[in-house]
Amino acid sequence: MSKVRVGVAGYGVIGLRLADGVALQGDMELVGVADVAPTLSVRALREKGMPYAFYTAAPEKHADLDAVGIPISGTLEDLVKNVDVMLDATSAGVGAKNKELYAKYGVKGIFQGGEKNSVADVFFHGYANYEKGLGVQFLKLTSCNTTGLIRAVDCLDRAVGVEKVAITIIRRVADPGDYHRGLTNALQIDKAPSHQALDLMTIMPHVEATGILVHTPVTHGHIITVVATPKKSVSPESVCELLSAHPRIRMVSIDEGFLGNASLFRYARDLGNPRGDMYEIAAWRDSVVMSGKDVMFAINIPQESVVIPENMDAVRACMRMQEGRIEATDLTNKYLGIGKWRIFY
Amino acid sequence: MSKVRVGVAGYGVIGLRLADGVALQGDMELVGVADVAPTLSVRALREKGMPYAFYTAAPEKHADLDAVGIPISGTLEDLVKNVDVMLDATSAGVGAKNKELYAKYGVKGIFQGGEKNSVADVFFHGYANYEKGLGVQFLKLTSCNTTGLIRAVDCLDRAVGVEKVAITIIRRVADPGDYHRGLTNALQIDKAPSHQALDLMTIMPHVEATGILVHTPVTHGHIITVVATPKKSVSPESVCELLSAHPRIRMVSIDEGFLGNASLFRYARDLGNPRGDMYEIAAWRDSVVMSGKDVMFAINIPQESVVIPENMDAVRACMRMQEGRIEATDLTNKYLGIGKWRIFY
Amino acid sequence: MSKVRVGVAGYGVIGLRLADGVALQGDMELVGVADVAPTLSVRALREKGMPYAFYTAAPEKHADLDAVGIPISGTLEDLVKNVDVMLDATSAGVGAKNKELYAKYGVKGIFQGGEKNSVADVFFHGYANYEKGLGVQFLKLTSCNTTGLIRAVDCLDRAVGVEKVAITIIRRVADPGDYHRGLTNALQIDKAPSHQALDLMTIMPHVEATGILVHTPVTHGHIITVVATPKKSVSPESVCELLSAHPRIRMVSIDEGFLGNASLFRYARDLGNPRGDMYEIAAWRDSVVMSGKDVMFAINIPQESVVIPENMDAVRACMRMQEGRIEATDLTNKYLGIGKWRIFY
Amino acid sequence: MSKVRVGVAGYGVIGLRLADGVALQGDMELVGVADVAPTLSVRALREKGMPYAFYTAAPEKHADLDAVGIPISGTLEDLVKNVDVMLDATSAGVGAKNKELYAKYGVKGIFQGGEKNSVADVFFHGYANYEKGLGVQFLKLTSCNTTGLIRAVDCLDRAVGVEKVAITIIRRVADPGDYHRGLTNALQIDKAPSHQALDLMTIMPHVEATGILVHTPVTHGHIITVVATPKKSVSPESVCELLSAHPRIRMVSIDEGFLGNASLFRYARDLGNPRGDMYEIAAWRDSVVMSGKDVMFAINIPQESVVIPENMDAVRACMRMQEGRIEATDLTNKYLGIGKWRIFY
Repeated sequence: MSKVRVGVAGYGVIGLRLADGVALQGDMELVGVADVAPTLSVRALREKGMPYAFYTAAPEKHADLDAVGIPISGTLEDLVKNVDVMLDATSAGVGAKNKELYAKYGVKGIFQGGEKNSVADVFFHGYANYEKGLGVQFLKLTSCNTTGLIRAVDCLDRAVGVEKVAITIIRRVADPGDYHRGLTNALQIDKAPSHQALDLMTIMPHVEATGILVHTPVTHGHIITVVATPKKSVSPESVCELLSAHPRIRMVSIDEGFLGNASLFRYARDLGNPRGDMYEIAAWRDSVVMSGKDVMFAINIPQESVVIPENMDAVRACMRMQEGRIEATDLTNKYLGIGKWRIFY
Repeated sequence: MSKVRVGVAGYGVIGLRLADGVALQGDMELVGVADVAPTLSVRALREKGMPYAFYTAAPEKHADLDAVGIPISGTLEDLVKNVDVMLDATSAGVGAKNKELYAKYGVKGIFQGGEKNSVADVFFHGYANYEKGLGVQFLKLTSCNTTGLIRAVDCLDRAVGVEKVAITIIRRVADPGDYHRGLTNALQIDKAPSHQALDLMTIMPHVEATGILVHTPVTHGHIITVVATPKKSVSPESVCELLSAHPRIRMVSIDEGFLGNASLFRYARDLGNPRGDMYEIAAWRDSVVMSGKDVMFAINIPQESVVIPENMDAVRACMRMQEGRIEATDLTNKYLGIGKWRIFY
Repeated sequence: MSKVRVGVAGYGVIGLRLADGVALQGDMELVGVADVAPTLSVRALREKGMPYAFYTAAPEKHADLDAVGIPISGTLEDLVKNVDVMLDATSAGVGAKNKELYAKYGVKGIFQGGEKNSVADVFFHGYANYEKGLGVQFLKLTSCNTTGLIRAVDCLDRAVGVEKVAITIIRRVADPGDYHRGLTNALQIDKAPSHQALDLMTIMPHVEATGILVHTPVTHGHIITVVATPKKSVSPESVCELLSAHPRIRMVSIDEGFLGNASLFRYARDLGNPRGDMYEIAAWRDSVVMSGKDVMFAINIPQESVVIPENMDAVRACMRMQEGRIEATDLTNKYLGIGKWRIFY
Repeated sequence: MSKVRVGVAGYGVIGLRLADGVALQGDMELVGVADVAPTLSVRALREKGMPYAFYTAAPEKHADLDAVGIPISGTLEDLVKNVDVMLDATSAGVGAKNKELYAKYGVKGIFQGGEKNSVADVFFHGYANYEKGLGVQFLKLTSCNTTGLIRAVDCLDRAVGVEKVAITIIRRVADPGDYHRGLTNALQIDKAPSHQALDLMTIMPHVEATGILVHTPVTHGHIITVVATPKKSVSPESVCELLSAHPRIRMVSIDEGFLGNASLFRYARDLGNPRGDMYEIAAWRDSVVMSGKDVMFAINIPQESVVIPENMDAVRACMRMQEGRIEATDLTNKYLGIGKWRIFY
């Protein structure tokens, strides 16, 4: 079977990781990436000798790219013509415009959490609603927090049923390297309920969700506390066991040395993971407590990389590469080296 | 009636605010403050011309104080002999030693949250269990987070009953000016349940409480999210109304410009409050949401000053200055200028 | 002699401190302050019972102010008509527009560092070039870093002559309470030379200056290191002596407990200074070292309040209240309680 | 020729990078690494399948390592017996004790900047004094800041002569993943002169150096500003040209997008460098300015990885693998993929 041909629009924090992820899938071919300007990430691509073909999404700025020696393989339109699926990781709002181009050439389009839900036919999560994405032309992925959160909630829901969740998102406010946003010595609160709770309900309409989000001045990993009301009785031990069994959840503990989000970033660097990335969310064993019949626990969301696996799942769904969620997510996990397929660099 | 004579041991972040608080109470007299070394706060006292008499808690270090011109009124023992009550805000563990001195002279002792519970006869909160402190010799106050949290939970509990609470504490990690502790670009999680949840249950044994605490690298104000299960049905509006009516809770909203803990610090500075302090906790109107029958909301705890009012209440209780919690807390509020008695500087 | 009538446009971080500063000057009268919206600072003014009359600079937004109960004394134009001098602390660029209004009514205008130099006839510093401001209609003050830096350089220059300076500005990136700007876990460098070095040369054209500025994620006080080439031979001791004698420079040391910018903020709070402000810059005794014949040292700039005294000086200059710089700055210092006139709250 | 056999004591931030560095040298063999406890880094080694043999430096804690399944190849003494050189990256003070063991077996020892100078026969820098290390038994490397700083100063000194330097070190206060140290919303100043200036003079005694160090709450890369007095006349262009030619200095500019230390970390991650490390220091083209005849510029020091190349040089020197500094440093650069030998992962 020939490989599915994939392009990536937007070579920023998410886009470059999507490109890396596609390049690792044995049954996909990365045709190229598109961006508009010689950003640091594009300059790094040049310094590495252009392992990925580069297409310009802003032909009128061609000269800026030429000036710093970025070889250009064509325009975004040229890229779109040559692929089966576009993973769109452009800035919020641009994806909606690019969609017209994807439609013109009958190419599938997968959008990220920053786009409006209306851009897509289905709001998608690899584990929670894979089947809804089968053969669909336009999918939208959940944002980083929602993606990680749904992994945990869906995992519990399939085992014991989840009636409702109340979440507190302790949000990192910037990525390492960001200068266009940041917060200094301040916590900032958003109006409740947080969009992540609302998004969870869109994907999992049988669960009631609400939550409060607080921004914090750090760059590594969100931490979310979840108060979940299960339908069947659970214990801290049984919840740990369920979460542990999920391929994209890593159980950790304070006693092992995982003191917070920064420990997880350091551990990923020590593992030799490219960029210090981690595809799995982490859940702290020693955070799991009961509140009456409800269970409360804390998870860590590695914001830069967490959505990559579910994006690969989305390619599989919209291209009908696999018909079932377990078959599809397993293959994604295998190629990305998640869980039992751990790759070491 | 003669004024109650009060001394303060430990002239640090809490101790100096206790001294200021006592000095404002019309029915108390601040006899003096005691510390061991010429810290910045003690040097500031000297620069201000010694408005408070200073006693040395470490006579062997007398020379260090002399060297920088701090006039010394005597030893800690001299201070203890001259007072009815000692407010002890020394470093954790020192209070337990000082207690022997207080016992020797039959003086009441009020300890802070850092001491072990065993140091005191009663674990005290002005609103939640004032009556338990009446005439007792040794009281221990709750820590800053617990003090603020109990204000809100006790307020709801008296109105509608509270069955259980699950809290997420987003903790500031240092005070402004601290160099002995801090965190850089990291969130740190503690083992659950947090001690604040356990402490709440000690004061309010009829409420089940659990919680997760995450340290964040900021210096102004903790933020706590509370998921509370009420015994009677509530709505966001009714919860806002209840919290608003509490003299030591200030309802704020994002629309007004209260974007987070730093806005509250700025507002207190703009009010002209000494040191930019705020005695009230804040609760965000636009954070109050329902999770099934549970209500969820966020409060802000100004860690440096929040415990001062309840300490004044504690003096009133142990000295039997007032017999009832409303009478006592009202008088504290009046002298500190809280709520309708707002003082402007 | 009747008091000089002063108005303040822009009631933000600088404007509200200018208002407080004017209110303290025995020979000036604060007629009122003007702003456009019910910001937190304006709401605090209301909560304090409107100690300052408030004028609206955006009559079309009158309703927003009404809605939250801010009593309005008139428009900015009404204020301008009633004063001798306007202190303009509006956002960068607005001052240039306001200037037309000031010109229309023949009112003096004093602008802050954010405005372009062309807005004013003279670029002003109370100690370095007071005489140039005498009777001039439009003055512009130096920004916070430049104001503090010039205090130190001018002080050395008058005593021993300064040939050149090379400065490194370690800049705080936001003020406490700021949410519109910030930096998270990053240092940011500006193109050299920094504007502060260029501004210093405008005020002190006989000194050659250059410098590099690095932004840091903190909110209290810039730290500047200065490498100065004196014309006469100096020693660390003689430099300390010269700086110590300046009324607006406070010599501190690490041994006393002044470990950095946060210690100075805490000390100002402990002194009881309103808002925890400090009008003086600090210079560290234990930072003063020789580099060949050059002297190197570090100063701290309290960014929120440092320019207030020089603004008062500017009123004195443009209104010819005093003819000489020492007479004028002394009177400012007296009313603000700087140096030997220390006020305690 | 047989490979030089190397061991690493201390598998922390520096030690694990030393092990990686040795493993890349074609003419060295990494025999193993030693540490005392199952830290996160040791756990990551286990998760990767033990690519490096692990020796225990605390046999009495054997059980702790066993408990988490770390296979142990022997004791530190066993490791020492089997090597030609030990790279010691243990906590400050431990190296001095380990030295006895190295002496007992006649093994060379290379210590890091945290040890006292007296631990070694020669204080070493690959570029500045390679020849002094030839055949010596005990070498001590300069700390991260000094290592990077000397690269730049030595580079200028060899070309135009440097009379003196005055440096301002804007120091990152923790590494990513650190929880044992940190600073929150504060700059902290050290007593001048900084030890880095003194250390520079030990290595380059013909240069006069002084400096001031300020700690900042960030985790990526120190920034140092240097004011250097050259013996021959220079221009910003000539200084850029000299620095550009150094294999371990990377010239960058703000216009390219290198806005600060965080941009460099991001760029290294985007290059695919393991752990996001960078062996080169960076120097900003647009920071280079003249102060009279002095030149001023800013460099970035990647604190976790900058000392690795000079440690490899030290192995070459003490083992007399190469006799000259250019030959030795070139070979190190080749194996580490620095400059023209860039390796891509």
